[in-house]
Amino acid sequence: MAGPGRNIYLKMKTLDEARGIWTDCVSGLRAPEEKIRSVRALHRVTSRPVTADRSVPHYHGAAMDGFAVEARNTFGASDANPVRLELGGKAFPVDTGDPLPEGTDAVIMIEHVEQISEGEIEIRSAAFPWQHVRKVGEDIVAGELLLPRQHRLRPADLGALLAAGKSEVWVRTRPLVWIQPTGTELIPAERAAEAGPGEIIEFNGTVLAAMVEECGGVPELKRIVPDDYDGIRRAVLDAVDSPAGVVLINAGSSAGSEDYTAAVIAELGEVLVHGVAMMPGKPVILGRIKGKPVIGIPGYPVSAIMAFEQFVRPLLHSVQGIEAPAFATVPAILGRKMPSKLGLEEFTRVILGEVEGRLVAMPIQRAAGIITSLTRADGILQVPQEQEGFNEGEAVSVRLLRPADQLDYTLIMIGSHDNTIDVIANELKTRDSRVHLSSSNVGSLGGLLAVRRAQTHFAGSHLLDTDSGRYNYPYIERHLGGTSVRLVKLAMRQQGLLIRKGNPRGIDSIAALTRPDVSFMNRQAGSGTRVLFDYCLRRAGISPESIRGYEQEEFTHMAVAVSVLSGRADAGMAIYSSARALDLDFIPVSEERYDLVVAESAWEDFKIRYLLDVIVSGEFRRRVSAMGGYDVTDSGRIMGVWDGTRWIERAE
Amino acid sequence: MAGPGRNIYLKMKTLDEARGIWTDCVSGLRAPEEKIRSVRALHRVTSRPVTADRSVPHYHGAAMDGFAVEARNTFGASDANPVRLELGGKAFPVDTGDPLPEGTDAVIMIEHVEQISEGEIEIRSAAFPWQHVRKVGEDIVAGELLLPRQHRLRPADLGALLAAGKSEVWVRTRPLVWIQPTGTELIPAERAAEAGPGEIIEFNGTVLAAMVEECGGVPELKRIVPDDYDGIRRAVLDAVDSPAGVVLINAGSSAGSEDYTAAVIAELGEVLVHGVAMMPGKPVILGRIKGKPVIGIPGYPVSAIMAFEQFVRPLLHSVQGIEAPAFATVPAILGRKMPSKLGLEEFTRVILGEVEGRLVAMPIQRAAGIITSLTRADGILQVPQEQEGFNEGEAVSVRLLRPADQLDYTLIMIGSHDNTIDVIANELKTRDSRVHLSSSNVGSLGGLLAVRRAQTHFAGSHLLDTDSGRYNYPYIERHLGGTSVRLVKLAMRQQGLLIRKGNPRGIDSIAALTRPDVSFMNRQAGSGTRVLFDYCLRRAGISPESIRGYEQEEFTHMAVAVSVLSGRADAGMAIYSSARALDLDFIPVSEERYDLVVAESAWEDFKIRYLLDVIVSGEFRRRVSAMGGYDVTDSGRIMGVWDGTRWIERAE
Repeated sequence: MAGPGRNIYLKMKTLDEARGIWTDCVSGLRAPEEKIRSVRALHRVTSRPVTADRSVPHYHGAAMDGFAVEARNTFGASDANPVRLELGGKAFPVDTGDPLPEGTDAVIMIEHVEQISEGEIEIRSAAFPWQHVRKVGEDIVAGELLLPRQHRLRPADLGALLAAGKSEVWVRTRPLVWIQPTGTELIPAERAAEAGPGEIIEFNGTVLAAMVEECGGVPELKRIVPDDYDGIRRAVLDAVDSPAGVVLINAGSSAGSEDYTAAVIAELGEVLVHGVAMMPGKPVILGRIKGKPVIGIPGYPVSAIMAFEQFVRPLLHSVQGIEAPAFATVPAILGRKMPSKLGLEEFTRVILGEVEGRLVAMPIQRAAGIITSLTRADGILQVPQEQEGFNEGEAVSVRLLRPADQLDYTLIMIGSHDNTIDVIANELKTRDSRVHLSSSNVGSLGGLLAVRRAQTHFAGSHLLDTDSGRYNYPYIERHLGGTSVRLVKLAMRQQGLLIRKGNPRGIDSIAALTRPDVSFMNRQAGSGTRVLFDYCLRRAGISPESIRGYEQEEFTHMAVAVSVLSGRADAGMAIYSSARALDLDFIPVSEERYDLVVAESAWEDFKIRYLLDVIVSGEFRRRVSAMGGYDVTDSGRIMGVWDGTRWIERAE
Repeated sequence: MAGPGRNIYLKMKTLDEARGIWTDCVSGLRAPEEKIRSVRALHRVTSRPVTADRSVPHYHGAAMDGFAVEARNTFGASDANPVRLELGGKAFPVDTGDPLPEGTDAVIMIEHVEQISEGEIEIRSAAFPWQHVRKVGEDIVAGELLLPRQHRLRPADLGALLAAGKSEVWVRTRPLVWIQPTGTELIPAERAAEAGPGEIIEFNGTVLAAMVEECGGVPELKRIVPDDYDGIRRAVLDAVDSPAGVVLINAGSSAGSEDYTAAVIAELGEVLVHGVAMMPGKPVILGRIKGKPVIGIPGYPVSAIMAFEQFVRPLLHSVQGIEAPAFATVPAILGRKMPSKLGLEEFTRVILGEVEGRLVAMPIQRAAGIITSLTRADGILQVPQEQEGFNEGEAVSVRLLRPADQLDYTLIMIGSHDNTIDVIANELKTRDSRVHLSSSNVGSLGGLLAVRRAQTHFAGSHLLDTDSGRYNYPYIERHLGGTSVRLVKLAMRQQGLLIRKGNPRGIDSIAALTRPDVSFMNRQAGSGTRVLFDYCLRRAGISPESIRGYEQEEFTHMAVAVSVLSGRADAGMAIYSSARALDLDFIPVSEERYDLVVAESAWEDFKIRYLLDVIVSGEFRRRVSAMGGYDVTDSGRIMGVWDGTRWIERAE
């Protein structure tokens, strides 16, 4: 549909095409130059070659603490034939940096001298001419090239500038970037507490401003303008007439009825690209008005960041005369199959961790609107447009979102979700700021399978065997043949029905779920909670078909809680702490055991040691108890040692 | 000698010992915490875990531009059986981010809808419930852990904070660092122009301040205090009583008669370490006064930087609750034998470049007082204390001083020194800011040998064959058997005698060098200038023994020029441009050819292409001609193609 007020992307470009067009358009632009004090020039980029005004040193000076002498007066000195020199006549005490007294040409280190009397020293080996002397120009010669142009100044460079008498230096100005948030739905971050439905807290502007700073630019974050053609037009005109060298408009870059950015740029200047075959980041607009680059940044936060990195980051460096540094990457093994569309450059967030000597990359949630998909990720895996995704186990190159030396410190957990995992993550970080727990919620059974595939250090599991009434053991026997693990108790926890505050539907037990006026939100098949719920239904003689919403599935306790809170369902089965977190009512149904299944190969790993220390600590027990619904008396107890064939040890 | 007022290092520690003592002393220190606005929190470190105040999204919203519907109204829709929905009743136009109208639970993308009339749309496939809907809490659930403590905030983290309603965040204050320059010989950088003998421009303070900034700290660079026990004592007391959390005293950390730092720290507090077996950086002092870390930083600039990196950098990170990121390293092959003392941790500056597919590291000048040994280096090679250096060709790990992706852009030149090389370096950088010319001056013959060992892309050579009067060809035939090279003319240049301005000794030709009142500074054996000088002597019938100073050697034209300027010698043989650079008089002796010897393996390399482009460019010729003493008519002409056995092509 292309009705009035809507504009479909003119012609989508591939990422390479868009980059080429953009580079051609902006590569000649340079920020103005300015002369600044060298002491303030850290990380600035030289706009002219710098030649030394002075030689360094500018006089012959002592390079050691000791005595200045004329070398030939020492010739012949030895242990057998020590030479004595008169202080003040033939030898002069000097400290490092002192100028050589007239007539001297060498320094003897203090350690190699014996003072015989007030007025005389003795030496036992000869000095050679210019020994331990810093000669004029040894470091820098006046007139020589000190630093080339287009050089980013590091701390030592500032020292060289000052030493050579350059108290000022010509550099590119830091590029000024106008950041224009647009959107009738946006409210400023300070008013977050008042946000109602349809109101979105403006935070992209702050993210973009921070990225501009990291590129050496100066961000100017402007007030929000509503989605109104004339208002946006006025703002863009103000921007291009301002001293700002680059203009970012966020968002209105898509094809919705209130997306005016492309039309405004087209009216005032030229749209070079609208829409790039990349994900996230597709609805980016690359334009130019009065010679200034004007970029329409997409509205979804991850899209905004990706579009910035692809098009604004290189620009902000090139206007300073340098190339943007390449992102650091590491080789990894993909832990899970990852399909991707041909013709689309995809940027997938992954967690990274070393499991059995291989760095494993696990893709996480993909939606471009999920800012935490970036803040919780360790890296980004780029799937080239000419490739239909990657297979499980394939070797890939992952761009790092945290320092490479921290990856050894990433502890991977895959499996069932529990709120105590947050507590563990935080306690680990407190013990050692480098230790980082990356967790992926795929349910208890998914966790066991990840252990089998050596994709995780440990799993969280609360799988009830409904025949025996025992937890986890039968599932390990069934699924982990050939894989050694240890089973560690984390906690007993309360499962039950979450219902809205005040119980408006009058739900009293799982029997009430069969009422036609009650809707339910279920957990996904394979999750421990689902197994438990089905077991409770069977025991109570209730058929799943009689429950409205039985087929609706969520993947975490908190997602179920949110469903109830928001009215999508009247009830859901989850742990007590999730009810408490969102202030819901809770009807206890059953207590269950939640265990950690630790891969034997990771058992001696220092991160697992930390983990075990944490879960037996008083602090952990105190915090978890405070959440309610947990019994942590036995936390850390080893419940079993499985060698891949049989239980070497078993607590039950 | 340990006379009054001098203090020898108490007891030198190894680097590991010193690190251990220091870590034990300071690891418990933390900068105070403060609550700041999240929009200003880039790169700050959280001091408390951050939990979300709000869910994100906080309402069910459209995830696409299109129409909100109730999914079950679309069931059964297909191409054969399109379904029509009334606008305003069963379907509502929505843009991304709009709240779902009451009664709807799915969004159909605009691309999949046909508008039949003003009031009706038609769809041809069913929507499933919650399709293209951003549900409450999908990104962030109120109460959950958003960021752990001790986390350094990145741009996306600021977005997550604001989205979750955290307009403020608890962070560690940036550590305040008092930087105290001491030294009677120091003058502030602004007064550089007035510096006389014995006066040293203070620039370490600025270097240290810049390094503090890079560690996330706030530097306070103080006025210089002279080398006076009481004055330094007062300054240190002021520092420890100030809000600064860390105190750096530069320098006076050595064992000279005016090195008071250790004594002052010992009087006011405690000296934990004085002297570490590292080079540069040995005379560092690690101390504590009133619980505050006080560090005596050595005076030589490279020593100061190394001591900072080893002891202050980790401290400034740990007080913020994080680990200092590891330095980036690359594997390389050592291009030249590098001896080092056992028991001493040595930090050697190297240049790095890829030659024939291997990254080659060439050690450069070592003196700790030479700031340009750092600014010109590509990396630092650390020789562990338990090792007696490295052999040529040994595999080593080199810490990078410039981005790894720039190493492909390093063009290595080894050989004879010429002032036009500075012009080339600058022109290359202008063409592509990444291209970096690293040159090492070892004389013409040393350059040819480096080409043979595949340690350089090209060499600079002006070796005269005194029998044939031809340049370079015979030397290539003699030394490059088995190695293919191309010989490219860079310039004809004027060699002659440099003498002091006004010619005070009345030198008129090389014959005057035999006079007893005239002293000479020679170039090293193997250099083209030495060969030429010896040739000129022979032709004139002068014996080397008759020249005073013939045995004194310098390694570059500029070093010879400095010797003459400073009065160490009355005359020296060098190129005209070096005389001009230091305003010396010049007596022409001979014109000679200076060629580039380019390894065949590098001939097609884009950096060599750039180099050849530069030397035929008008800009290069203009600049070199302006230096005087050069004839660049034929610059870039190929003088010969040598296949390792014979000349395939030869211009002469």
